[in-house]
Amino acid sequence: MREKRKNLKQALAKGKLIKIVGAHNGLTAKLVEEAGFDGVWASGFEISTSHAVPDANILTMSDFLNASSEMANVTSVPVIADCDTGFGNANNVMHMVKKYEAAGVAAVCIEDKKFPKVNSFISGRQELASILEFSGKVMAAKSVQTSEDFMVFARVEALIAGWGIDEALKRAQAYFEAGADGIFIHSKSKQPDEIINFCKAWKKKSPLLICPTTYHIAEAEMKELGVNIVIYANQAMRSAIKSIKETLDYMKEKGTQGLNSQIVAMDEVFRLQG
Amino acid sequence: MREKRKNLKQALAKGKLIKIVGAHNGLTAKLVEEAGFDGVWASGFEISTSHAVPDANILTMSDFLNASSEMANVTSVPVIADCDTGFGNANNVMHMVKKYEAAGVAAVCIEDKKFPKVNSFISGRQELASILEFSGKVMAAKSVQTSEDFMVFARVEALIAGWGIDEALKRAQAYFEAGADGIFIHSKSKQPDEIINFCKAWKKKSPLLICPTTYHIAEAEMKELGVNIVIYANQAMRSAIKSIKETLDYMKEKGTQGLNSQIVAMDEVFRLQG
Amino acid sequence: MREKRKNLKQALAKGKLIKIVGAHNGLTAKLVEEAGFDGVWASGFEISTSHAVPDANILTMSDFLNASSEMANVTSVPVIADCDTGFGNANNVMHMVKKYEAAGVAAVCIEDKKFPKVNSFISGRQELASILEFSGKVMAAKSVQTSEDFMVFARVEALIAGWGIDEALKRAQAYFEAGADGIFIHSKSKQPDEIINFCKAWKKKSPLLICPTTYHIAEAEMKELGVNIVIYANQAMRSAIKSIKETLDYMKEKGTQGLNSQIVAMDEVFRLQG
Amino acid sequence: MREKRKNLKQALAKGKLIKIVGAHNGLTAKLVEEAGFDGVWASGFEISTSHAVPDANILTMSDFLNASSEMANVTSVPVIADCDTGFGNANNVMHMVKKYEAAGVAAVCIEDKKFPKVNSFISGRQELASILEFSGKVMAAKSVQTSEDFMVFARVEALIAGWGIDEALKRAQAYFEAGADGIFIHSKSKQPDEIINFCKAWKKKSPLLICPTTYHIAEAEMKELGVNIVIYANQAMRSAIKSIKETLDYMKEKGTQGLNSQIVAMDEVFRLQG
Repeated sequence: MREKRKNLKQALAKGKLIKIVGAHNGLTAKLVEEAGFDGVWASGFEISTSHAVPDANILTMSDFLNASSEMANVTSVPVIADCDTGFGNANNVMHMVKKYEAAGVAAVCIEDKKFPKVNSFISGRQELASILEFSGKVMAAKSVQTSEDFMVFARVEALIAGWGIDEALKRAQAYFEAGADGIFIHSKSKQPDEIINFCKAWKKKSPLLICPTTYHIAEAEMKELGVNIVIYANQAMRSAIKSIKETLDYMKEKGTQGLNSQIVAMDEVFRLQG
Repeated sequence: MREKRKNLKQALAKGKLIKIVGAHNGLTAKLVEEAGFDGVWASGFEISTSHAVPDANILTMSDFLNASSEMANVTSVPVIADCDTGFGNANNVMHMVKKYEAAGVAAVCIEDKKFPKVNSFISGRQELASILEFSGKVMAAKSVQTSEDFMVFARVEALIAGWGIDEALKRAQAYFEAGADGIFIHSKSKQPDEIINFCKAWKKKSPLLICPTTYHIAEAEMKELGVNIVIYANQAMRSAIKSIKETLDYMKEKGTQGLNSQIVAMDEVFRLQG
Repeated sequence: MREKRKNLKQALAKGKLIKIVGAHNGLTAKLVEEAGFDGVWASGFEISTSHAVPDANILTMSDFLNASSEMANVTSVPVIADCDTGFGNANNVMHMVKKYEAAGVAAVCIEDKKFPKVNSFISGRQELASILEFSGKVMAAKSVQTSEDFMVFARVEALIAGWGIDEALKRAQAYFEAGADGIFIHSKSKQPDEIINFCKAWKKKSPLLICPTTYHIAEAEMKELGVNIVIYANQAMRSAIKSIKETLDYMKEKGTQGLNSQIVAMDEVFRLQG
Repeated sequence: MREKRKNLKQALAKGKLIKIVGAHNGLTAKLVEEAGFDGVWASGFEISTSHAVPDANILTMSDFLNASSEMANVTSVPVIADCDTGFGNANNVMHMVKKYEAAGVAAVCIEDKKFPKVNSFISGRQELASILEFSGKVMAAKSVQTSEDFMVFARVEALIAGWGIDEALKRAQAYFEAGADGIFIHSKSKQPDEIINFCKAWKKKSPLLICPTTYHIAEAEMKELGVNIVIYANQAMRSAIKSIKETLDYMKEKGTQGLNSQIVAMDEVFRLQG
């Protein structure tokens, strides 16, 4: 696991655009690696969805940790774990970092929403933690890691909450000063403008992460904007849902006859089991 | 959960063809229900695959139980749990039944392979438990259930092991006499002949379960043969794998631009989270 | 499990003093039952201690649920689960009630501290949830139970927080109106006066629970005061710690020779394993 | 965790008598360390007892792993994990080693009983695995470790099974040649003779572990016999059971009044929570 952490840190230092994709279990993490991506995003949203519960701290840290640990165990690319708000206060964050580091993930990401959280793409009010409180969580996280290359990313939710770009920059600056190894700037706007403006104003002060879901930015432009890690967070799962629904509808009507062209062979499944 | 057990038992009594589909987590179980199937098969093969480990008792009963329990919690159709060989000997089977019954599954299915098992579709030698030993497991399982409608199905692996139809019938008879609520006759032949012959020879002595994976039988014919439950065990997951691979390949090349037609909308995901 | 819930509810109705004792795993729960007590308190404090972590939401709901479920499985007396603040907001409380009810506990108890909590006996500031927020949790809890006799107790922390008896009574009244099946009034005073005064002022409006740890009240007096459930929450574990320390010191010096009079025989351990 | 493994290996190399004590959770492991012992035995027997289930593979590897991992997390002395028969066949053993090594234990110990096992101190027939099969497990275990100092101990059950000292020596030799880092020779005789004879005949070919439970050997004699690790496996828990029973009986009769001299203070519990 030390290798994976070092690789991620070095890739960040080189300024290469690192592409990571959301996964929710060992199988999907393995598929992400096999497709040639640079890492796995252990997505809280995907993991919640896989359990058919809302992304609102219904699952416990134990559930997310188990899933992240499994993804780290079955892949050789770095896993970055989406750790929501850190599962409580600064004490919980310290406990969390110890557990995730021991589980072999390369980095964790915490966000400055209040706990318990609401998913960022749900419409309606989002409350944010105070800058002081969240900076304390970042410091707490960085204070307990035991391996040099483990990283903590801080996710700024100010744009999601509609608090504007100045607040977002102020928060990013505070979290960076508190020791964050990178800033994840998130947006649910359909246009990329606020992300682009943030990135330009940030001026490559630190590694930057983005997660285009509602907006689109070409990868070439990401590099120019100083984005280091792009997270494609939920598309793979959304394609799986579409496909499963279509296959089930087919089987409901016709059984399994003629289904083989729409599904992988059993041998491919055995191969993926390892 | 009592309702679900009663419903399954009554549906069996009516002789209707019950169609159930394999799932491996809450999400896929929910999709199976929404597609209109009669129940969920908490598939050991799918659950192992989702963790990217072989279907060979690498996962523990805890893992399978957690997954089955989750499926039972988020659906209103009955869940039948694939419990491999019962996770050990007759003592383990009794412990298992208590746990699965408490978790709200409607029925469990155990198979007469030796523990630790090898997946039935893996080529090569398959060892079977003795008839005496496995009948003991069936009796042990039936002896500890506390709710009237909970059921235990016995899976006969004699055809898989190449021991022939007479051995399969002998075993089915023994397990039925030991108290099994139904016989699951399994085959990996590409032709349905041995399944058809078994069914005909069995003469509807008990409820019958089949799982067409390598062979095909039309559903109309299943009814005539006295099949009560057909399990489509792994096709949904195999379609998901195909779809995820294609989506990942697309994203590797082109990012997320233009992907929307191949994936469900975020709102559909929120709906599925409940 | 329905029997156990009904028994607890009937015992409450009869006005008998119900004595329950804290436990943290199957073994200690079984010892509590064997000693003749009326029930088991699945103590958050004990469970945290057994894992050697502070009683401050470091463990997740999964950990507490597993422990409580195990206690319910191996005993025939009712288990009342100490559920801290409900593990988050009202949504988390609803999720929690579903899980605990399914796990077979007879009742849960939630407290009106803020989440994440600090143990009540730790000196220093304790923040309380607003009456409105906590009443909402009580209503949320009661709204999702599926078995008639499942109960939700509300723990008032106003005395612990130093907010006085009037605040405690006001909160008790609000939680009772919100549907709480009983009020747990807690104190860390060395004198029983504030508890006694609370009980007198409460006038048996609802079932009352107390947990004498720092203060002492004779059981005969409890009955007069309208106390229905007395929880001896941590003494058994504290005696175990004392004994383990002494045995380890002995073994460090002298090995196991001559130890038999201080420990139970192996046969007694086999008996307790069941 | 690397330090702890190296320390254990170096202590073995020095020929010092290493004293380790059985524990079953974070708390008891911490007490073992604080009492000055050299390490913790994550005892399958104790862990099973704490869950109030028989030591007969009722708990799954997940349960034992969780407990062992917790013990390793909260102590700074090495943890040696009692892994029964390795939870299945050689495949399961490889999976197990990966998991336990990742969890930070310093060494694992597997025994040559058949799976599922029966506790060694239970009277009645014990079946042993063949030498070939168990040697294969030892080789499998050694083949997958990734850290240099991780160790695998092989427990010889031939004396427990009544198969005699020659069989025990033959098995020890085979397991040693298969790569075991030490031989655990076990006996349930009331006299130490067969252990002494085994040790003498073994002639310090490899590190030796013993676990005096029914028999007694003075520590000075252990050193002479070439014993490197003595395991006091269950005495601490047996003293806790005795103490808990006495405290519960006292409380049943008298409540908590006058109990303070028999239990540790709350402050000591807070200290142990860390």
